[in-house]
Amino acid sequence: MLRIALGQMEVIPGRPDLNTAKMLTMINAACNHQADIIIFPEMAIPGYLLGDTWEQQAYLRDCEAFGRQIIAAAGNICVIFGNVAVQWDRHGDDGRVRKHNACFVAHNSRLIATRIKTLHPNYREFDDTRHFVSLRKLAFEEKQDIETLLTPVKISLQGREYTLGCIICEDGWNDDYSTDPIAALHANGPLDLLINISSSPFTLGKNNKRNRVFSRQARETGTPLLYVNNTGLQNNGKTVYTFDGFSTVYSSSGQIITYCQPFTETLAYLELDVDTGGRHRPPVEVPNDFTISSLYQAIHYGVKQFLQSVGITKVVIGVSGGIDSAVAAALYASIISPDNILLVNMPSKFNSQTTRDLAEQLSRNLGCLYTVMPIGQAVEHTAAQITGTPVTNLGSGEQSHLSVSPFVLENIQARDRSARLLGGIAAAFGGVFTCNANKSELTVGYSTLYGDQAGFLAALADLWKHQVYQLADYLNTQIFNREVIPQAAIELVPSAELSWEQSVDEGKGDPIIYPYHDFLFRAFMEFWNRATPEDIVLWYSQGPAVLEQKLGCEPGLVSRLFPGPREFIEDLERWWRLYTGMGVAKRIQAPPVLAVSRRAYGFDHREAQNNVYFTQEYQRLKNQLLPVP
Amino acid sequence: MLRIALGQMEVIPGRPDLNTAKMLTMINAACNHQADIIIFPEMAIPGYLLGDTWEQQAYLRDCEAFGRQIIAAAGNICVIFGNVAVQWDRHGDDGRVRKHNACFVAHNSRLIATRIKTLHPNYREFDDTRHFVSLRKLAFEEKQDIETLLTPVKISLQGREYTLGCIICEDGWNDDYSTDPIAALHANGPLDLLINISSSPFTLGKNNKRNRVFSRQARETGTPLLYVNNTGLQNNGKTVYTFDGFSTVYSSSGQIITYCQPFTETLAYLELDVDTGGRHRPPVEVPNDFTISSLYQAIHYGVKQFLQSVGITKVVIGVSGGIDSAVAAALYASIISPDNILLVNMPSKFNSQTTRDLAEQLSRNLGCLYTVMPIGQAVEHTAAQITGTPVTNLGSGEQSHLSVSPFVLENIQARDRSARLLGGIAAAFGGVFTCNANKSELTVGYSTLYGDQAGFLAALADLWKHQVYQLADYLNTQIFNREVIPQAAIELVPSAELSWEQSVDEGKGDPIIYPYHDFLFRAFMEFWNRATPEDIVLWYSQGPAVLEQKLGCEPGLVSRLFPGPREFIEDLERWWRLYTGMGVAKRIQAPPVLAVSRRAYGFDHREAQNNVYFTQEYQRLKNQLLPVP
Repeated sequence: MLRIALGQMEVIPGRPDLNTAKMLTMINAACNHQADIIIFPEMAIPGYLLGDTWEQQAYLRDCEAFGRQIIAAAGNICVIFGNVAVQWDRHGDDGRVRKHNACFVAHNSRLIATRIKTLHPNYREFDDTRHFVSLRKLAFEEKQDIETLLTPVKISLQGREYTLGCIICEDGWNDDYSTDPIAALHANGPLDLLINISSSPFTLGKNNKRNRVFSRQARETGTPLLYVNNTGLQNNGKTVYTFDGFSTVYSSSGQIITYCQPFTETLAYLELDVDTGGRHRPPVEVPNDFTISSLYQAIHYGVKQFLQSVGITKVVIGVSGGIDSAVAAALYASIISPDNILLVNMPSKFNSQTTRDLAEQLSRNLGCLYTVMPIGQAVEHTAAQITGTPVTNLGSGEQSHLSVSPFVLENIQARDRSARLLGGIAAAFGGVFTCNANKSELTVGYSTLYGDQAGFLAALADLWKHQVYQLADYLNTQIFNREVIPQAAIELVPSAELSWEQSVDEGKGDPIIYPYHDFLFRAFMEFWNRATPEDIVLWYSQGPAVLEQKLGCEPGLVSRLFPGPREFIEDLERWWRLYTGMGVAKRIQAPPVLAVSRRAYGFDHREAQNNVYFTQEYQRLKNQLLPVP
Repeated sequence: MLRIALGQMEVIPGRPDLNTAKMLTMINAACNHQADIIIFPEMAIPGYLLGDTWEQQAYLRDCEAFGRQIIAAAGNICVIFGNVAVQWDRHGDDGRVRKHNACFVAHNSRLIATRIKTLHPNYREFDDTRHFVSLRKLAFEEKQDIETLLTPVKISLQGREYTLGCIICEDGWNDDYSTDPIAALHANGPLDLLINISSSPFTLGKNNKRNRVFSRQARETGTPLLYVNNTGLQNNGKTVYTFDGFSTVYSSSGQIITYCQPFTETLAYLELDVDTGGRHRPPVEVPNDFTISSLYQAIHYGVKQFLQSVGITKVVIGVSGGIDSAVAAALYASIISPDNILLVNMPSKFNSQTTRDLAEQLSRNLGCLYTVMPIGQAVEHTAAQITGTPVTNLGSGEQSHLSVSPFVLENIQARDRSARLLGGIAAAFGGVFTCNANKSELTVGYSTLYGDQAGFLAALADLWKHQVYQLADYLNTQIFNREVIPQAAIELVPSAELSWEQSVDEGKGDPIIYPYHDFLFRAFMEFWNRATPEDIVLWYSQGPAVLEQKLGCEPGLVSRLFPGPREFIEDLERWWRLYTGMGVAKRIQAPPVLAVSRRAYGFDHREAQNNVYFTQEYQRLKNQLLPVP
């Protein structure tokens, strides 16, 4: 029987000092608990998402020194942990010193083994290949097989020798690779334990898949599998990732026999009879993580950790009376004390009494501080200053005047609210102001730069509008257990209220028809093989039902919304132009986005500010649908 | 004798239709010119920097179809061009359809050969490994040698067989790789021509190195080398790259025998006697490209192309009277007509008559439109509104008031200028407004978010302050041939003039001491192995002269600026904190940066918003210098 400690620690990226101190504390506790082995996550010492900090040799030396402290602390206990491994006398393809993402095994205060990550994820937000040499690349260079380089680690515990297979994160997700690290390990003979140390960001629904994949690995190899993942928050600037931990142990028959609470730093213990591989233990039920509850948990955790990480305790939120800012306000109020939240309503003449009242009601319900600062006077002054001040050609002395169109005035209002008022109020309040944009808006740039797109963090910007509504309902019914977000705000037509054309009292609002466009936009940006107008119009030409099924939207919606192909195509092109045009320009200057989906804006959705483009085949399909008369 | 056409075309990323049309025109012209071969750049059809557009299968099919058009057009002429090669029945490591960055050789309207890029750059802004399978990876998968897969291409021209070695961009920059594609090609026997098709962004000084490296390759292999690179502008959102073309032919003795003008789309012809490898031809002199003239050329070209690419014809520039906005104004005035440039001076009570006059003088010199819109009234209104409007606790009814500190007021001013005025003016003028930030400011976040950091493009943000001065001088003396930027603006102390503490008339200004900090910041961010406080303090402790030499700043400066280690370290920590702290947060929301240096902010300088950190060794060195009493 082995006693194994799962060190599901919060890893603080870029703070090897704090991470090492945490690990030493956990090692000490595990020793006191007579554990035989303690397992820490991938890159437990340096952190995982560090940008190009890996190019600082001083940082590498520092992480190595902290690694030596951990090795020294591994006395009677075998310590398995992730760190960067540096080969100072060799270089990588970039000419810089050679680095590996590695798993260290230490025992009796000595380093027993180092194993290098074989597979480097090179999609979504991952950047391993930029910095590290994989075992796969090394095998090619040295003309060796993976199984020759990725051998099991043997350790002696309680007078017996155990054979451990140590892999790192992506090594366990090898279905699409031509290299299989688990098979390579088993080619060296049977294993007692398969250990996967990970630093795997939360993605809605990913744990469900992980449990299927890892359970199969344990079952097929007849080896208990221990998955240890970190908690905490890491980011690559534009995109912020939560790490849920959710460390899990699979028995040799593929059953889950224990797991750690997600989003919770914890040191868990497991007694494992290696001879039976835990297969006689009762399986435990793990929660489905493709739920609104998971989503809330991730966002709540992400915001809390982000505030803590940047040292922010006070938040200003512009509340319009609409749904997005209401959800933002309720979310923050579930994290920090209402005294530290200042809700600001900034009406213009275009804002209805309905939404003003809703903003106040929301503030009352949440118990936050509240203030109303109208923008009318400032907007009038701006418009008057711009139109009233002459523009001079100093050569000819000729003077002219600028004029302000209604559309220009809409954006002046939005910038007035955010950059002029919220920026000043937040600084005066000693805090920051939030960006309440959702993913639907961000997709097509339906917001004003330096206006409602501004803020220190876009906490809801990875949620489609329909998910914002789900979150509103969840906050009321499950978190606050009362109607903090007024039901009328949920039922209100979504509107920016920047002109009389957007009057909520007349049921007028946003040009985005969320029940359809949410799903169209999702197909553009979240599908693994991105949908383009060519795909959309092909599906449409196969029948609206085909399109609705492919997009996943409500059946019957497409025919209801679009009288015919002309209207359908006009709409498609309009939004594609915005998504690949102005939307890109605005996202370049957007705040960091808190990621929850399988693809978030930012580093996970790389894009260039290029021309809008329609393929030849799209043109052909379009011409079929809309024959030139 | 072969007649070879070098198709140094402008590649428009994401526009395979336009690129193909251009190629067809050039093929036609080359045919009329009796050329035997025409060579186009890497990824000539799709473009190179496309973000994740590679994940759109419709786009891939489209590029394939355009590729077939080019192959069909290759009649008597052999056409060599770059395109994406798709293997629809295989997948990459990400599970998506397998793609290669490839070189196609077509002749007699048939595809003769496809060669895959062997080495993928995976540093700076490059992202090849994310999307494409390299020949190196393929060799590993198939357990083959590179020389087996990368064979020369044989074509028949004028009744004779020629052996071509076709490589792509990074394949020629293999010094740091364990794989050498050129050696692999030669392992298959002698070549008549080595052809390197590239899509290589401009970097100040890179062509000097390229000429050394490629000249050596031609000489050592005794093979004439033809390097064909595209012109144009490509970007990955946060960072914008110019492509200078500068296609060059090296004789078999390594001499440069012809080259194309940089930043100029051109179809050049070369008569090459393959038997002598051009070694009897007179060498031509290529210009040194590590000069202020190159820098200006790149920035000028970059801004011109960017404006054209996003369809902007009118520009608003906030002019303070200081150097950065003056250089921005002169730069834009060298690109678009002064009638389409509106310079706006936005004084507050803190702005001196000196700078107001300089702003007006600048506008007069350039012949741009000019207007003065003071911000005093709006700033006062904002401060009064924020301090005068009660903040209410709706529960208790308790009211309080916010207060506005002088620092808060500084940022209110900056945001008032940019987000309130310039945003509105630009929209009313029918254009955009510029961001005039330089690299020194951007490094430490010495600018206000939604204030002077805002703008549609940061054209000068890859220039250190001392380069901005060089550019000012160059614009006056070489471009305009008169003092368009007033000499007094060049001599003025740099200042934001946001408070009386920054009065230029009293010689007070920015806290950044550019002659030293430019070089310190450069060491943090541009050095291939990034310098950190640990390195800096180590060099300092070896003597100020060591530090000055390492940084490349003026000798004697360090001792002059810092009376002792305490002041030195205080300064070092102050700026490191800003560079890795607030600076990161601000850069996340910065406009796109036009890149010219070996490392620009954005995609070329990946960074996370993490804690500020000092290594253990730094602490030790610091304690040595500043012993605790």
